[in-house]
Amino acid sequence: MSPRGLFLTFEGIDGSGKSTQARRLAESLEAAGYDVVLTREPGGSPGAEEIRRLVLEGDPDRWSAETEILLFTAARRDHLERTIEPALNAGKIVICDRFADSTRMYQGLSRGDLRALVDQLHGLMIGREPDLTLLIDMDPEIGLSRAKGRQGTEERFEDFGPALQKRMRSGFLALADEFKNRFRVIDGNRDVDSVAVDVRETVLKVLR
Amino acid sequence: MSPRGLFLTFEGIDGSGKSTQARRLAESLEAAGYDVVLTREPGGSPGAEEIRRLVLEGDPDRWSAETEILLFTAARRDHLERTIEPALNAGKIVICDRFADSTRMYQGLSRGDLRALVDQLHGLMIGREPDLTLLIDMDPEIGLSRAKGRQGTEERFEDFGPALQKRMRSGFLALADEFKNRFRVIDGNRDVDSVAVDVRETVLKVLR
Ligand SMILES: Nc1ncnc2c1ncn2[C@@H]1O[C@H](COP(=O)(O)OP(=O)(O)OP(=O)(O)O)[C@@H](O)[C@H]1O
Ligand SMILES: Nc1ncnc2c1ncn2[C@@H]1O[C@H](COP(=O)(O)OP(=O)(O)OP(=O)(O)O)[C@@H](O)[C@H]1O
Ligand SMILES: [Mg+2]
Ligand SMILES: [Mg+2]
Repeated sequence: MSPRGLFLTFEGIDGSGKSTQARRLAESLEAAGYDVVLTREPGGSPGAEEIRRLVLEGDPDRWSAETEILLFTAARRDHLERTIEPALNAGKIVICDRFADSTRMYQGLSRGDLRALVDQLHGLMIGREPDLTLLIDMDPEIGLSRAKGRQGTEERFEDFGPALQKRMRSGFLALADEFKNRFRVIDGNRDVDSVAVDVRETVLKVLR
Repeated sequence: MSPRGLFLTFEGIDGSGKSTQARRLAESLEAAGYDVVLTREPGGSPGAEEIRRLVLEGDPDRWSAETEILLFTAARRDHLERTIEPALNAGKIVICDRFADSTRMYQGLSRGDLRALVDQLHGLMIGREPDLTLLIDMDPEIGLSRAKGRQGTEERFEDFGPALQKRMRSGFLALADEFKNRFRVIDGNRDVDSVAVDVRETVLKVLR
């Protein structure tokens, strides 16, 4: 736990409902009187959003995996310094839609040897872990069909297909096991309201 | 030395004549029949040039020192993969106007504790050092008055004043001492032609 404030992150495969649940949680905590900052990665600060555009737009082969990791880490460092840390120091609850665990998964799983590099870089330049990470776990087939319902130009990380999404799901569950203390696994195979109630109760338990 | 090709860098304080000498050396080696790639940092590949714009344009306080180091390292990684390594593997001579030593100096000297971070990040993500580094050493007052003769929008790293330029000069000389094997110190307090002859002879000695 941070000395002040609380740092919550949502993780999970594409289309699992992270953004939906992050928004719902922010609304419900605000309604309960908490001071909440809802943010996302990559991005979350003006500088990090510019780096986000550099990484996500254009040709998917534009950057090597290593350069991409460096750019994501630069964006995360800026986001942490300019958005997350100031809010935590002001005693707020920070809800972040994806954080370092997504880099561990997406970059770390795409090539076997990169997970160690991601971790070393994280240790050197970021250091901070969330107080609580909500993993929205769900059947990849359902997630993919939901994601197809949306539109956008930043499609590169959704073009992976069901096989990789299955590996991602197992990867996230393994990560939850690796960082048992801060991870809570939420069953995302339910309607939005049921998941939201589960998320809310999990967070309130930690807040009390 | 690289198995194939030769990786040369120019370093030195602002206005010391790096770009002028890099160009002169490239011309003279090409005239002597060598296959030469002249490049620069930050930048030197399409992706790295985009990152360069992100770092050098806009408000000087836009990025923290740590984020800036990450962005420079991302640019360097791209430059290395897309421009430098392919040229070296094709047996070419790569002449690079600034490289990692500039990050060691500019970021590493601006705050005492950053040099170690720069080195760790370099070890993790870049690893490569030049075969030969030409340090154009000169009186900072002369360098500043020369630099003022030019125009440009990317002025932030020239706004340091004579006191910091003196620290930079000593810093570069200390670096040359630290990496004795690959550094050669060139007296830059002379006319362009005299410096160019010195540079050319130093490089030809290594090439033979
Ligand atoms: N529990 C749910 N049941 C049905 N549909 C849902 C549920 N949760 C979210 N959705 C819908 O599925 C789609 C994906 O949800 P959302 O954008 O929240 O997922 P995400 O995890 O943020 O995806 P991404 O990883 O692509 O950002 C949206 O259209 C959303 O309205
Ligand atoms: N030996 C020299 N004598 C006099 N003027 C020189 C000499 N070398 C370079 N100059 C002039 O000084 C200015 C700075 O030179 P140059 O751009 O090559 O330096 P630089 O080290 O690349 O600077 P920067 O660090 O700002 O990129 C230019 O106007 C150049 O023409
Ligand atoms: Mg989302
Ligand atoms: Mg120059």
